[in-house]
Amino acid sequence: MPKMKAAIFVEPNRIVLDEKPVPDPGPLDAVLRITTTTICGTDVHILKGEYPVRPGLTVGHEPVGVIAKLGSAVSGFREGQRVIAGAITPSGTSEACLCGCASQDGAGTPHGFKAIGGWKFGNTIDGCQAEYVLVPDAVANLAPVPDALTDEQVLMCPDIMSTGFSGAESGHVRIGDIVAVFAQGPIGLCATAGARLSGAGTVIAVDSVPARMEVARRMGADHVVDFKAVDPVQEIMRLTDGRGVDVAIEALGTQPTFEAALRVLRPGGTLSSLGVYSKDLTIPIGPFAAGLADLKIVTTLCPGGKERMRRLMSVIAGGRVDLKPLVTHRFKLDDIEAAYDLFSHQRDGVLKVAITP
Amino acid sequence: MPKMKAAIFVEPNRIVLDEKPVPDPGPLDAVLRITTTTICGTDVHILKGEYPVRPGLTVGHEPVGVIAKLGSAVSGFREGQRVIAGAITPSGTSEACLCGCASQDGAGTPHGFKAIGGWKFGNTIDGCQAEYVLVPDAVANLAPVPDALTDEQVLMCPDIMSTGFSGAESGHVRIGDIVAVFAQGPIGLCATAGARLSGAGTVIAVDSVPARMEVARRMGADHVVDFKAVDPVQEIMRLTDGRGVDVAIEALGTQPTFEAALRVLRPGGTLSSLGVYSKDLTIPIGPFAAGLADLKIVTTLCPGGKERMRRLMSVIAGGRVDLKPLVTHRFKLDDIEAAYDLFSHQRDGVLKVAITP
Amino acid sequence: MPKMKAAIFVEPNRIVLDEKPVPDPGPLDAVLRITTTTICGTDVHILKGEYPVRPGLTVGHEPVGVIAKLGSAVSGFREGQRVIAGAITPSGTSEACLCGCASQDGAGTPHGFKAIGGWKFGNTIDGCQAEYVLVPDAVANLAPVPDALTDEQVLMCPDIMSTGFSGAESGHVRIGDIVAVFAQGPIGLCATAGARLSGAGTVIAVDSVPARMEVARRMGADHVVDFKAVDPVQEIMRLTDGRGVDVAIEALGTQPTFEAALRVLRPGGTLSSLGVYSKDLTIPIGPFAAGLADLKIVTTLCPGGKERMRRLMSVIAGGRVDLKPLVTHRFKLDDIEAAYDLFSHQRDGVLKVAITP
Amino acid sequence: MPKMKAAIFVEPNRIVLDEKPVPDPGPLDAVLRITTTTICGTDVHILKGEYPVRPGLTVGHEPVGVIAKLGSAVSGFREGQRVIAGAITPSGTSEACLCGCASQDGAGTPHGFKAIGGWKFGNTIDGCQAEYVLVPDAVANLAPVPDALTDEQVLMCPDIMSTGFSGAESGHVRIGDIVAVFAQGPIGLCATAGARLSGAGTVIAVDSVPARMEVARRMGADHVVDFKAVDPVQEIMRLTDGRGVDVAIEALGTQPTFEAALRVLRPGGTLSSLGVYSKDLTIPIGPFAAGLADLKIVTTLCPGGKERMRRLMSVIAGGRVDLKPLVTHRFKLDDIEAAYDLFSHQRDGVLKVAITP
Repeated sequence: MPKMKAAIFVEPNRIVLDEKPVPDPGPLDAVLRITTTTICGTDVHILKGEYPVRPGLTVGHEPVGVIAKLGSAVSGFREGQRVIAGAITPSGTSEACLCGCASQDGAGTPHGFKAIGGWKFGNTIDGCQAEYVLVPDAVANLAPVPDALTDEQVLMCPDIMSTGFSGAESGHVRIGDIVAVFAQGPIGLCATAGARLSGAGTVIAVDSVPARMEVARRMGADHVVDFKAVDPVQEIMRLTDGRGVDVAIEALGTQPTFEAALRVLRPGGTLSSLGVYSKDLTIPIGPFAAGLADLKIVTTLCPGGKERMRRLMSVIAGGRVDLKPLVTHRFKLDDIEAAYDLFSHQRDGVLKVAITP
Repeated sequence: MPKMKAAIFVEPNRIVLDEKPVPDPGPLDAVLRITTTTICGTDVHILKGEYPVRPGLTVGHEPVGVIAKLGSAVSGFREGQRVIAGAITPSGTSEACLCGCASQDGAGTPHGFKAIGGWKFGNTIDGCQAEYVLVPDAVANLAPVPDALTDEQVLMCPDIMSTGFSGAESGHVRIGDIVAVFAQGPIGLCATAGARLSGAGTVIAVDSVPARMEVARRMGADHVVDFKAVDPVQEIMRLTDGRGVDVAIEALGTQPTFEAALRVLRPGGTLSSLGVYSKDLTIPIGPFAAGLADLKIVTTLCPGGKERMRRLMSVIAGGRVDLKPLVTHRFKLDDIEAAYDLFSHQRDGVLKVAITP
Repeated sequence: MPKMKAAIFVEPNRIVLDEKPVPDPGPLDAVLRITTTTICGTDVHILKGEYPVRPGLTVGHEPVGVIAKLGSAVSGFREGQRVIAGAITPSGTSEACLCGCASQDGAGTPHGFKAIGGWKFGNTIDGCQAEYVLVPDAVANLAPVPDALTDEQVLMCPDIMSTGFSGAESGHVRIGDIVAVFAQGPIGLCATAGARLSGAGTVIAVDSVPARMEVARRMGADHVVDFKAVDPVQEIMRLTDGRGVDVAIEALGTQPTFEAALRVLRPGGTLSSLGVYSKDLTIPIGPFAAGLADLKIVTTLCPGGKERMRRLMSVIAGGRVDLKPLVTHRFKLDDIEAAYDLFSHQRDGVLKVAITP
Repeated sequence: MPKMKAAIFVEPNRIVLDEKPVPDPGPLDAVLRITTTTICGTDVHILKGEYPVRPGLTVGHEPVGVIAKLGSAVSGFREGQRVIAGAITPSGTSEACLCGCASQDGAGTPHGFKAIGGWKFGNTIDGCQAEYVLVPDAVANLAPVPDALTDEQVLMCPDIMSTGFSGAESGHVRIGDIVAVFAQGPIGLCATAGARLSGAGTVIAVDSVPARMEVARRMGADHVVDFKAVDPVQEIMRLTDGRGVDVAIEALGTQPTFEAALRVLRPGGTLSSLGVYSKDLTIPIGPFAAGLADLKIVTTLCPGGKERMRRLMSVIAGGRVDLKPLVTHRFKLDDIEAAYDLFSHQRDGVLKVAITP
């Protein structure tokens, strides 16, 4: 049984590179040879033990690779084909999938819905920070990469870009909207790009790290608010002449950003939440207008599946957005522990790292 | 200057019947002679001083009446015509109105949006618990009552029915949905009726007052859960075989009902909130799935305007719903202080009272 | 290899009962033993050669049955389980399925979309007017029948009810809408029921066959217009006081019904088309208002998949609609040629026939 | 009574500059002193007698100007303020307006809906190719122009930009869509820009005039198809690798463009029609897939009202689109007959003309 290298969660604060057998696909699966992958903020939560996964699991959920082996019931693809798969890998056949809620895929559960059930890589099955990864429900999830696009160009599609863009999409950003995006980490930056791409007339990004504020402008922000220099709620109200925003996107997962997002909404506005929260949230009664202001709060888990990936890659191929500035560092898989060290401490202006086996 | 009787807010815990001048319409207004009106839970909040209004204001926002006088610029109506107006009286001409957010009408404000701005009667202008009421922006707000319908049949349209139905509408209840409605006061009962009318396959109502539970069945609930007898979250999960509900409607305005509504949602479900909250709300991280379960929380203020009223009356005229069981008591305007006493203490199985000058 | 009886298309005007091998499931398939099925108007088009299928094909696409055998990769079901499958059997894994367009499932095609591609039974693979039928993509398509429901109660779910209801759903019928439904065959009757179930305030059904007009009332029509007795456009304008309808549902597939549906629409209204047309259609410029009246024309192919079936069965189980009046005749599979003769000539007030092997 | 110059429709093929009294505002109106206006393709239809208006009417519906006088009941504006008004001037108070269908405003009609009723300027009331124009329902329709924008920068907002963008909006263009736009006159060019602005991954423009094809690229088209050089349907299928488009926008109003738009749609796609048709249209049965391909045909009349204008101006102010290339020629109002001559014959590469009194 051939072996491969994989980044394995051992215990809190220990993800190590170790050996594992190369996976063998079941009838509906495919195995990819990974050519490029990356580390996500969620992986850092796993590293720190804040998001529990079972010891021994391979982490990582953002694969770019080549089809190494196809399951016996998989058609429409060929070995050697260059593909990506989304961080979320819906089966396509659960009740959740069949009613447009694929990220909550509960394939195999009694009712077909399972909260966060579509997120499998590096969560409930082995992930892709390894030389090979098994992709479940391959027909629904393998998305061929156009030849014209490099690995790094599509590396953000599986998670960061899909999640970030969904902030604008779930918020139903319309032509001429004013949109604020709280936090300009990789997902917030993609939310900024997504808001711009959706026709927002004004995009206001909030952060305090100069490098991120700079990239926010490149992603399409008209205004960048430094929340350490000014009160971001006051500043956004000033920038909008007191109007407030049509859509506020939360991209961090904390009470202060959630609350600020609520406070800048105009009546009838939408708070589109992308953050992963670790504590109970409070909705302050004042900005919530006692529940009477026609406000909406919507949350979205990264949309996956091959059609989503195809669309995102078409946006990149069409030159609509250039996410290469997000890849700030590059590591060999052999050095992934160093990559985790850099990324988890957000040293050296890191946004995203590219990992190549 | 002719005088009329009116129920006037004097100070907390004092609403008294007193005399006021009959209002005179400005060019865009109409004056109605009230034939029937009612008291809303919101009026009780005003009575208790929980919702502040200026002393001297006439309360009440649910008018059925006859056009007594039309403003000089009002066309399309005639004096003597029998009409209702919604509790919310949008101008039709603000930015909010023009982008489909009429309840947040900010006519006259710099940006055209104002939280809860569409609610004027008994809030920012004199209300309709009086012999006469001035209706602002009359062309947008006067809705002729079909001859076949009695005052009491349409008495719920201005607020209770419009609000309750909007719980189902804003929750986007679809054919075959499972819907839970928390609290079966007048608005919750209308939400139950609205969910049924929107095609829900299963409607679960929650309350503990036997009379309300009984009316809930008449409004279309398939199951009625007594939250004093069983844990409503557990019971709803049992009734749905562990699936949870597609849409949960909150119709009270408290943390326990809000939180229970969140806890019974399936992944991807919608919490449609109608309640008027008086404190900060907590979103518990567990049922919120850390923000990753594609949940939505939507709030709605009673939709108003003449077209809304016309549609609601057509639903009643078509025999789709019979809200007469909601009118449990009748009073003369002269006795409105007694009506407040009964209604505010929820004595004698009261649901709604009809007040006739 | 065991044999079974099946209704086979031989050539135009000849569908015969003959023997075929019982199908054997591939890894993703299931084989059902049919307990009840029915004949659809589309089958009559096939019979007459108007809709071409390959000679030798078993016809029929409305199966109620029991799982006889499951493919090796199918989980979540057990042999002996009582199920239905939709007339449309999406794979769940094509691009079309993954973007909410499952009826146009193009699994296996280069782009994942194929017009009418979700309709397989009795069209591109053997259908279910037989003792056994192979269900493709079984995990996505098998829907367990609640014990409380009889075969005949769920017999309309696979096609007639799903299609008819979609007329109201795609037309976005809202509470208080006025809806007209043109033609009251089985699909039109279900459209009438669906419009009522979606909250329409007024439902106007159009037909001329007395028995169908009578069932239309039982399905919820407020008015039934006999197009042989009056001009249906004029009559609908009269019934709506000149307003026209919010949504017009076409349920026949002819120029006169399509055109009448367009003519009764109010500005901004929606023509929801369910019919299968056999000729080019004309949009008359007048009622189309030169393209400037914000009109919408939407077409829908019967939604399928197990979640759709589950929802429709829940609507029946909840007593929201009773479609048993649609089953007017019963035949043994052995007598299916007689059933076709009766059904294709619409003799004896036939609406739908139940066929039992 | 002061006089002004105005372009007046006299009879087919005769629009002349003549004198008229300066209008006087009623209580709800405003009078603008026009500073810039333009000629629309619709005005040419009026000129030619193809769209009938009453002799003596001032034509033109695209005003940029300064408030000269306000009606007695108009508040929130001041004389001297620089404003635009949309080509469509909804009252805000009709049933149509109150249910989100403002372009079909039927203020004053029995049912509140009137086909094309929102289009008043140069159609049912005097238009703005004059020194002054009366704006009805001024509160709903006057939109202040930001100081930073010139007249020519906002000249496309009242009609061309609002209409063109609505092609993408009504077609629900989503991130990653493939969109084809048939005809690249001023409206088609704005539809191209609107599709790009809505996140389309690929935009394909169709025309044959080199100058328009060139501007189409500047507006964001990825591909420009010359329908005189190639068959546009075949070429679009080639450019999309046989997939077809998600949304096809028709921007001319002829059978060939309508039909080509239908033929390039993928199953489940949307034909968004902006054209003003002058004859019955044919829907060919083949590309319509007999009504079974989940296709949608939606038509849109230019959205108006001050909030729409504000949003469009914010898009321009934000640098999202630059429509100045559309203004190819400039004339004094005194020379408007020459402007009509040039524009109606589409001489000299004209796209839009700016007219200044």
